[in-house]
Amino acid sequence: MPNPSAAMLVIGDEILSGRTRDANMHYLAGELTRTGIDLREVRVISDDPDAIVAGVQALSAAHDVVFTSGGIGPTHDDITAENVARAFDRPISVRDDARAILTAHYAAREQELNEARLRMARVPDGATLIDNPISAAPGFTIENVHVMAGVPSIFQAMLASVLPTITGGAPLLSQTLEVRRGEGDIAGPLTDLAARYPDLTFGSYPFIRDGCHGANVVVRGQDGAQVDAAMAELSEMFAG
Amino acid sequence: MPNPSAAMLVIGDEILSGRTRDANMHYLAGELTRTGIDLREVRVISDDPDAIVAGVQALSAAHDVVFTSGGIGPTHDDITAENVARAFDRPISVRDDARAILTAHYAAREQELNEARLRMARVPDGATLIDNPISAAPGFTIENVHVMAGVPSIFQAMLASVLPTITGGAPLLSQTLEVRRGEGDIAGPLTDLAARYPDLTFGSYPFIRDGCHGANVVVRGQDGAQVDAAMAELSEMFAG
Repeated sequence: MPNPSAAMLVIGDEILSGRTRDANMHYLAGELTRTGIDLREVRVISDDPDAIVAGVQALSAAHDVVFTSGGIGPTHDDITAENVARAFDRPISVRDDARAILTAHYAAREQELNEARLRMARVPDGATLIDNPISAAPGFTIENVHVMAGVPSIFQAMLASVLPTITGGAPLLSQTLEVRRGEGDIAGPLTDLAARYPDLTFGSYPFIRDGCHGANVVVRGQDGAQVDAAMAELSEMFAG
Repeated sequence: MPNPSAAMLVIGDEILSGRTRDANMHYLAGELTRTGIDLREVRVISDDPDAIVAGVQALSAAHDVVFTSGGIGPTHDDITAENVARAFDRPISVRDDARAILTAHYAAREQELNEARLRMARVPDGATLIDNPISAAPGFTIENVHVMAGVPSIFQAMLASVLPTITGGAPLLSQTLEVRRGEGDIAGPLTDLAARYPDLTFGSYPFIRDGCHGANVVVRGQDGAQVDAAMAELSEMFAG
């Protein structure tokens, strides 16, 4: 059975303007690979209502599971929740269970649950809450879309509670060989090797270090014995 | 006149598997902001022919200018050039000008211009070459799409030669105020301020540091005097 396919929608002007460097994509990619879920596509879009609706609809239809990050805080530019609701044509309102979580959180800190903070209790009809152990304001799951925070520590905590609910396939195993030659020297033999191992994928990722060209050759597959065998051939091919 | 709109297509399994953390998106975002070009969307896709064709076609049609990174090296998994050609229904072949660049480069290094390396001289009909001062193999521009390398140092060098050819609008100015309060406390006043400055955009980017909530409030706009005025109001609002 093929692994489930996943996509990510990163929502935020701050990434596209270069102000913030996104960290959640790389974290999610690593976690999904470990869990046996294939991340196939990531889209980064601005805080634009129609872009959010279009992105959610396209990715939700094309993939088994979708993760969003960003735009679920209390400020006027946090517009993710209402537009995810709109993407699925669902009403959205302050929900009692989400309000109760925020009430308890702010009461314990003697802070006011004001109108802005109450925005974070708005949840589309029929969605399930995602626990936020760090700052209380929940994410939510609607259909196959998991709507999570953009702050990395909160994104990671939410992902930890969501991942066990998704059934992954066999984890993808990978091994890497660093080759101290230009890619042009290894391309031919690598193509031949890839043809003999159709169940594996072979990637070549060039780098320049100390002025010298090299490449990390990565062998990936679900069958550990095959990966080992291909790596042994590779090492012999490019030894020394 | 509104700024030109831009999109980026990042091509590479190594990003989606979590093996490599992409650096080019953040770099491009910063450069475009400085140049007065609005980066509106980024898509990260795998080394899949149909995904490349679909991504190039969608982004090229929706934006004034598109930048791609990755997949133009000599190995079998470098399939960007032929699929960008396919996206525009153009033939692709080894071109004399590109071959001459590679011939000179490898001759000077006493390296063989073998079949794999010659792949890097394949250019779609009608495309313009993009100079690669680091490892010679050129990128290319076809219609409104700039096809560039994934290795960050080469991506940056190619971008430097492409950017002056694109007419940017007025550069987007930004100023940031770090506020040591939770977003919930600043959301109300910030909304009011944003309403009084319709030509500016106001973003609030929360963080947690030393266990305390805070936010960077960013004011962006093309009119420096307006940005200054809004920042002065902000500072007064959240002083202390």
